[in-house]
Formats: sequence, C-alpha cells, structure tokens
Amino acid sequence: MTLTTMSDSFPTDSVGLVKPQVHHFDEPLTLRSGKVLPAYDLVVETYGTLNEEKTNAVLVCHALSGDHHAAGYHNLDDKKPGWWDNCIGPGKAIDTNLYHVVSLNNLGGCAGSTGPASINPETGKYYGPDFPVITVRDWVNSQAKLMDRLGIHKWAAVIGGSLGGMQVLRWAISYPERLGHAISIAVAPKLSAQNIAFNEVARHSIISDPNFHNGRYLEYDTYPKQGLMLARMVGHITYLSDSAMRAKFGKTVMDFQTAGDNFGRDLRTGKLSFGFNVDFQVESYLHYQGERFSENFDANTYLLMTKALDYFDPSVDFEGDLSRAFANSSCKFMLVSFSTDWRFPPERSREIVRDLLRAGKEVTYLEIEADQGHDAFLLPIPRYVKAFSKYLQRVHEELVNHAS
Amino acid sequence: MTLTTMSDSFPTDSVGLVKPQVHHFDEPLTLRSGKVLPAYDLVVETYGTLNEEKTNAVLVCHALSGDHHAAGYHNLDDKKPGWWDNCIGPGKAIDTNLYHVVSLNNLGGCAGSTGPASINPETGKYYGPDFPVITVRDWVNSQAKLMDRLGIHKWAAVIGGSLGGMQVLRWAISYPERLGHAISIAVAPKLSAQNIAFNEVARHSIISDPNFHNGRYLEYDTYPKQGLMLARMVGHITYLSDSAMRAKFGKTVMDFQTAGDNFGRDLRTGKLSFGFNVDFQVESYLHYQGERFSENFDANTYLLMTKALDYFDPSVDFEGDLSRAFANSSCKFMLVSFSTDWRFPPERSREIVRDLLRAGKEVTYLEIEADQGHDAFLLPIPRYVKAFSKYLQRVHEELVNHAS
Repeated sequence: MTLTTMSDSFPTDSVGLVKPQVHHFDEPLTLRSGKVLPAYDLVVETYGTLNEEKTNAVLVCHALSGDHHAAGYHNLDDKKPGWWDNCIGPGKAIDTNLYHVVSLNNLGGCAGSTGPASINPETGKYYGPDFPVITVRDWVNSQAKLMDRLGIHKWAAVIGGSLGGMQVLRWAISYPERLGHAISIAVAPKLSAQNIAFNEVARHSIISDPNFHNGRYLEYDTYPKQGLMLARMVGHITYLSDSAMRAKFGKTVMDFQTAGDNFGRDLRTGKLSFGFNVDFQVESYLHYQGERFSENFDANTYLLMTKALDYFDPSVDFEGDLSRAFANSSCKFMLVSFSTDWRFPPERSREIVRDLLRAGKEVTYLEIEADQGHDAFLLPIPRYVKAFSKYLQRVHEELVNHAS
Repeated sequence: MTLTTMSDSFPTDSVGLVKPQVHHFDEPLTLRSGKVLPAYDLVVETYGTLNEEKTNAVLVCHALSGDHHAAGYHNLDDKKPGWWDNCIGPGKAIDTNLYHVVSLNNLGGCAGSTGPASINPETGKYYGPDFPVITVRDWVNSQAKLMDRLGIHKWAAVIGGSLGGMQVLRWAISYPERLGHAISIAVAPKLSAQNIAFNEVARHSIISDPNFHNGRYLEYDTYPKQGLMLARMVGHITYLSDSAMRAKFGKTVMDFQTAGDNFGRDLRTGKLSFGFNVDFQVESYLHYQGERFSENFDANTYLLMTKALDYFDPSVDFEGDLSRAFANSSCKFMLVSFSTDWRFPPERSREIVRDLLRAGKEVTYLEIEADQGHDAFLLPIPRYVKAFSKYLQRVHEELVNHAS
C-alpha cells in the first residue's frame, strides 16, 4: 500500500507525501481491437485507509492528460499537489478520513503505466506506434484486474470527470455488481462530430510534425514538440469557456489613446506589434501552456487518449439505445455538468440522465452555474464541491448502516 | 469596366461570364502601422450597370478567404460561381438589375491584388514576410481610393459578412458621407479572447511548419502545406455549428451489431481502424477541406487576414466606447446575425446594435434562426435572403425617389 505521511509543510487537509506503487500483471489482456497485451504495469497511488471489510474503496479515473497522481505531494519541494487535490483529502469531498482512494495511470499513459513510451519486451525497443489502441472498455477491464489484485470486491464509488467520467459509465455497464455508486462529471454519452473534429486537428498536428517519425521519435531521441504544442493549444481553448477567457484575458492593460497605434483591450504590451509576434495575453498564455505540456507528455499517448474519446459510445452494443446499455446496472448514479462547458455541455449529461431514468435507475443530477467551461470539474467551485461532499457523505452513511 | 456576358450554359439569374480588371495605384498608401505602400494593384470585378448619376453602386467586402470573384463565372467550364453568387445577380438580393456591384480582392490578398505573394518592385523578389500588416482601416482607405478611381462619390450601400462586415462598420466611421447604407452580417465589434486564441493556433501552425522558411517559402519553391491545412481545419470547425456538423456527419452509415468491432455512429466505413487513420466522416471532410485550401491560398496572406481580425476594434480611438465611434456616421445600418454562429454569436451583433442606438442611428437588426453556424451568411437561407432582398429594394426605391 502507498505510504501516506503528513508533513508540517503541507496543508492540514492534504493527504501529504504519497508514493506511487507499481503493480505488474502477467496475465494477458485482450483488448477491444482484438490485440493482446501479454503483460503490463499499472502505477497506482492510494490515499486514506482501506477498512477491514474492504468496503470503503473508491476508484478515481483520470481524464486525457491526467495520471495516478491525483492528490498530495511526491516530495517536500513539490510546488503543486496532484491534479484533483481540491477534492481528495481529509475533510474534502472525497474524504480520506472515510474512504480509501485508488488512483492509477491508465494503460497507454506516459506516467509509469505501460504505454507507447515503455519498452516492448518482445523487441527491446520503445513500443511507440506499435502500442495498441486502447478503449475506455479496455481501461475498465484493466482496472478490474487491479481491483482483484488489491483484494477489493466492490467499489463504494467509481468517480471521474470528462474521459474519467466515461470510464465511470463503462464500469456501471461492464461490472454492474462491482460498484455501489457511479459519479460521472462533465461527460457525454459519446463525442459529437465537433469533438471528434477537434481531436483530429490535434492528431493531425502531431502526426504531421516532421519530428514525429511515424511515432518512432524516441528512437531518434526527439519528439514532435510543435505538433504536441499545437494539439494542446487547441485542446486548451476547448477546455475554457469564452467567458472564462474573457475574464482571464479580456482586460485592458493600458490606457486608451485617441490617436496613434497604442490601442487597447487585452494587449500584452502597450503597442501592437504589426507583425506575427504575440500581441495579446491569450496568445502568450496558450504558448506557455502548449510548451509546458509538450515537454511533459508523450505524443503517442496523446494520440491514444483522443482515439479512446472518439471511440467511446456504450450504446453501440445496443442498437444505439443507451438506456439498454444500463439495463443491468445496479449502482446509483450521480451526474454533474457545468453551464459554460461547451465541450460536453449540460444537454449531453441530460441525455444520459434521460436514458438512465428510462432504464429505471436512481440518478442524482446537478447542473452547476459556472463560468469556467469544461475545466470547471477540476476547480473548487463551492456549490459543486458541497454537493459532491454531501453525496459522498451519504454514500458513507449507507455503508456504515449496511454494515451495522 | 468588367464585361458581363450571359451564356446559355449559366442559370438565368447568374451575372454570367465576368472578367476581373486590375487597377494600378501609384499614389503611396500610408498604413495604420506607419509603413507606406508606395504603389499597389487592386483586382476588381463589377456586376450590373452603373447609372448615369453613379448613385447605384454598392461595394461588397470579402471575408478571410474570399476575393474579388463574388459572382458569376470566369469561363464556360467553371464548375462553381463566385463566393456570393447566392446573393448577387439579376433578381437576387443584391439585384444586378438595380445595382452596380463592385467587388475587389483586398490588399494583402493572394488573388491578384498586391500582397505577400507579389513581387516587391524594390527588391525584385516576393514580398513574403516583408509585406506590411494590413488593418481593416487600411483596406477601407484603399477601397476609397478605388472608389475615386471609379468616379463613384457615394456607395448606395457597403455590404459584407464576417471580416467583410467589419470593413462595412469601418466605412461608416471613416467615410461617413460616402455611403448610404451599411449592411454588416455575422460580425462582432471586436474579437473575443477565444476568437484570437483560435487565430493564434492557426498562425502558430503555419509559422512552425518547417516549409514556412520565415515566410520566404516561395523563394524555396515550396509552401507550408501542413501548417496551412491545420489552420484551415481549425478555422473550418469554428465556421460550422455543432448542430450543422451533427446534421452533416452524425448519421450512422452502417448497421449496429451486438458484438464485434463493427460499431456505429458517424463511421466512414463499417470498421474502426484501431489506428490513427480516418475513422469518421468528419475527419475525412476536414482533411479534404484543409488540403484543398492549402493548395489555393497563400500562407502569408492567411497570417495577415487573421491579424486584421485580431486588431479590429473601432472603439479604440474612443476610450472603448463604440457608440462614440459612430457619432459622425450618417448612413443607415442593417445588421444580421445567426442563432448558431458561435464565432460571432448574436450577442456580439446586439452589442453593436445597442451602441448604434445609443449613438442615435437608424438600425435594422435581424437575428436569423439557422443551423449552419457562422457559414450561414454565405448560404441561401430563405428568411435571411428575403429580408436582405427587401432591404435593398427599399434602398433602391429611396434612391429613385430621391432622384425624382
């Protein structure tokens, strides 16, 4: 199990220092594509204590660019905690005083689990483009193997946002007896043509980068920096709402003048460049985000993650009827959407709610007024976090009552 | 003047065969950037007959990827007419039986007017990146020079959509006595941070293409094909609405099957590739659009056009108060927006309408329910075209009454 130590230097509601653990699996995993992964590693973090009955475990599933490091710090000098530290910790929404939280890096990832940047044991070289395309269903199957390894029979809840929320829905369909609650945030029943179009732009920018080398860039000791940067820039625009961007960058940072080329709005400097340098704050922000991301993420993993999104559609085995996909689900559902999320807008969550109700399932649905777009699911928005906390408190009360 | 000949092979409501004319200007043009263009060519098409009093001329301004070829055909084998043939012709909204239509390729363009792909007479080489950044105001100034050349004192109307609509607004501000009506369609008072962000992604994709060669690609006998393709793909997504994409590509083209990898929705073929090839129709559509565009448009011009958009903000000389910018305008205004246009949504047009009303101007505002997104302004949407026709008929009646 992961060591969890509190340090003086961390906030008291932090899970503190955490140490990832690697679990190796030798049993082959047959994928949706028909390909077989003969063996693989999953890197995992856990927070909070598993109770004796092993009934208080929750699984947290990450989104496109996330990983196993969802909360706490890896060392004393860490400036930033895990990606969902807002919501995971003692007294927080996913309360580590009540729950044992399991968070893994998904297969195909680039943060320690087996993926395209891992060495293929059969060739001794990087997998690169030979790493098979992974679907949400494959991830859930591998998460079920991990669950068995950890000796957990049933998750109190499976929780995730965006692509993570899709894994939550797939859990309720593929392993109906093995979760009590499915909490799916900022999600859609499947991608829209527009969603797929943006993903394809991202992929095309990576693949057409001369440093991509057909996906074998690591063998050339390089990576498609510009392509990955562009992919992230496009992605980033879709994660933020127009209003969030306006709030962030729409301010005038200089005086207006009646004449001259000193004109205003969201200028970074007082003067327009009249060239193709950065003129507006939003441009330098996107450059910075894209550049930082490109230095820390594997391009082949990015391709895989976007395909997993594009292929997600649990209704496909049921003639397009999502309600039938949920027929055997026995968990309760919570769905949350955000008003300005234009990537997966509230309408899309309502489609899922409608189909769950048609399937006779118990659903709690929350539509949060929030300016932050798709990114809202990661942010400490009071009404959202409060409702999320309350829900998980009730889940815990249920567990305790059921046990007594 | 442009020759206009009717041919048996063209529709009867077409302006028929048209021939562009080149006008050379030797008088230097001082630009917003402070730079001076010593001489330049403007390529122009006209449709319909200029009356003796020269009062029935209308100027059509093009958008990002448009040019002077707005209506009719260049030769008998032309498969497609000009970009706004829907609206320009005998009996059409911009009725060439009533009006003399002037349409030019703007400075910095790549369809015949002086631009980055032209030879710089001072060096004997392509301008390339040395071509100065052009603003909407510069275009309008050059259009006024053209107007003088054509002997037209006052436009009956200046008309344009998107970036073209911005030129219309600038006309009303810069040359208040020289137009009777300003018809500005699918426009915004200035770009949002999100708009600028998408433009910056487009620019970055062009500039980071290794074939860009700092903008001197023509000297290397190449062009940044991948970068321009990506730029257009991103642009294209923003021109279409999510619902238009769904209507176009959201159809299932195969049977669902209970098992196997034959799953459905908007698949191009019956099978998913489980690779990074094209799986969905929307992907091949974007590739096609991007590729075709990249072969027909100059990358430096694309950069210039996006900067002209980013820099547009007529309120800058008036401490951010757009209503003051219109104080001296004496024309009447018509604004049109489209419900699913998320690039320049109706709210942005309403901002302009509000400021025009505050300035005491006469405004007709039309908000059209249309599924087609920003692209709607180019399409023959009945309610839009009808209102547009009626408006221009009334403008013509005014002209006739005024003359009599």
